[in-house]
Amino acid sequence: MNLYNLQKIISVTLCVFISYSSQAFSESLTNKIDLYEAASTSAYVPTLDTIKLITADGELNRELKNFMLKKRDSTTLKGKKIAILATDGVEELEILVPLNYLKESGAEVFVVSPKKPNFPDTFGVKMPEIRSTHIMTVRLMENSGWIKIDKFLEDVSVEDFDGLVLPGGSWNPDFLRTNTNAHTLLQAFVETNKPLASLCHGPLILVNAGLLKGRKVTGYWSIMKDLENAGATVIDQPLVTDGQLLTSRFPYDLPRLMNAFTEHLIR
Amino acid sequence: MNLYNLQKIISVTLCVFISYSSQAFSESLTNKIDLYEAASTSAYVPTLDTIKLITADGELNRELKNFMLKKRDSTTLKGKKIAILATDGVEELEILVPLNYLKESGAEVFVVSPKKPNFPDTFGVKMPEIRSTHIMTVRLMENSGWIKIDKFLEDVSVEDFDGLVLPGGSWNPDFLRTNTNAHTLLQAFVETNKPLASLCHGPLILVNAGLLKGRKVTGYWSIMKDLENAGATVIDQPLVTDGQLLTSRFPYDLPRLMNAFTEHLIR
Repeated sequence: MNLYNLQKIISVTLCVFISYSSQAFSESLTNKIDLYEAASTSAYVPTLDTIKLITADGELNRELKNFMLKKRDSTTLKGKKIAILATDGVEELEILVPLNYLKESGAEVFVVSPKKPNFPDTFGVKMPEIRSTHIMTVRLMENSGWIKIDKFLEDVSVEDFDGLVLPGGSWNPDFLRTNTNAHTLLQAFVETNKPLASLCHGPLILVNAGLLKGRKVTGYWSIMKDLENAGATVIDQPLVTDGQLLTSRFPYDLPRLMNAFTEHLIR
Repeated sequence: MNLYNLQKIISVTLCVFISYSSQAFSESLTNKIDLYEAASTSAYVPTLDTIKLITADGELNRELKNFMLKKRDSTTLKGKKIAILATDGVEELEILVPLNYLKESGAEVFVVSPKKPNFPDTFGVKMPEIRSTHIMTVRLMENSGWIKIDKFLEDVSVEDFDGLVLPGGSWNPDFLRTNTNAHTLLQAFVETNKPLASLCHGPLILVNAGLLKGRKVTGYWSIMKDLENAGATVIDQPLVTDGQLLTSRFPYDLPRLMNAFTEHLIR
């Protein structure tokens, strides 16, 4: 079995949420990671490779691997309702790791996305029919799959949730940041002081929602200038906490972001 | 022949620059556009569809179609050397339309890109081997092809060119905006007062190069807030001219952008 198949297995496993025991999955992955050294296949497009990311020699990489494999206490977040606000182009790990973690910790998790966008004909955009019910995930520039939408952004309000996750990927916030329903929902989260966790390019949406003035945040390195220009103090560290606003830079910061998010949810 | 094949033909024609007469191409395209109505295939990923864009009922769409089909005077830009600065994720039409237009108008055109990026292992990024010599184009979220790099960004300076084009796509400027060689080159273009044309997400690079304070510009709607926060006055119109800095919003603005760029080059 080559690495491509291995990555596919992990991804499909995460994606479809077929019933598996966390432990069996953990053992099977650990065995399979040894195969990594044998891998020689190059990606055909620039890709964020899950196996490469979680097996790289770095403290944050090891944290991510352990976090993904850890057995959860399914009572930790019992009764909590969490929105993950995302659309097409969301980075796969940035939606699947929180989704998986929060569900395994007992929360009810909803992928919240705008209805199928209705671009003017003059834009020349074609949206596949599956976009009516699903959003497209990516691994950097590789299109990786479709995740089911649980609730449409147009139909929800802050009262429906106890916390919100705002993941990244480049196109995802690019679409969401001009969506006034997204602004309204995020502003309501800040006004009602509910936990809001965002990472990578996700905080760009907060720029357009006008929520960054005087706040301490972080984000993917390429957008730090935009966050700063929007009035935020940007700190280059894995997790930045400012009240209920929690931000991170990159998928390998997810364990710290999710742990802090959990603490804020159960306070 | 279905629309997918038709789009492929146009794209391959533009891409490979096989020797064709503009007129023959024009006639063949005009005949084929009639087939558009018969198209029923949906895209499998969110796509910017060339045929849909150039046949849509809009003034700017018609301008783009006519511009793409027009026969050029190959002496207009004779002796001019133009850089198109771009990397992976550049929107296909935003690189191919300028490339084709400027070459047909007699200019020598160079695709200028950073050498194959050397991400730290901890990022988990895999770059295909072809990235050593080519960059990847997209149509919105559809990965569409690889264009040959003519000169590496690391090896050029402002003296090598009379003008520069900075196209968009979401990932392309995201990669370039943290590249200090890109900043240096763009700053030198502004200092030496040479024409600089940018569109869509391209102007984001100017944010990080610190070139927008007090300037009048435009760009893709989602980034307007970032341009404004960087100190620019943003105007929502197809072409904004401020000295030698020319900016546009979307591929259908390309004819006005390229015509203004030409005027500035031959002044």
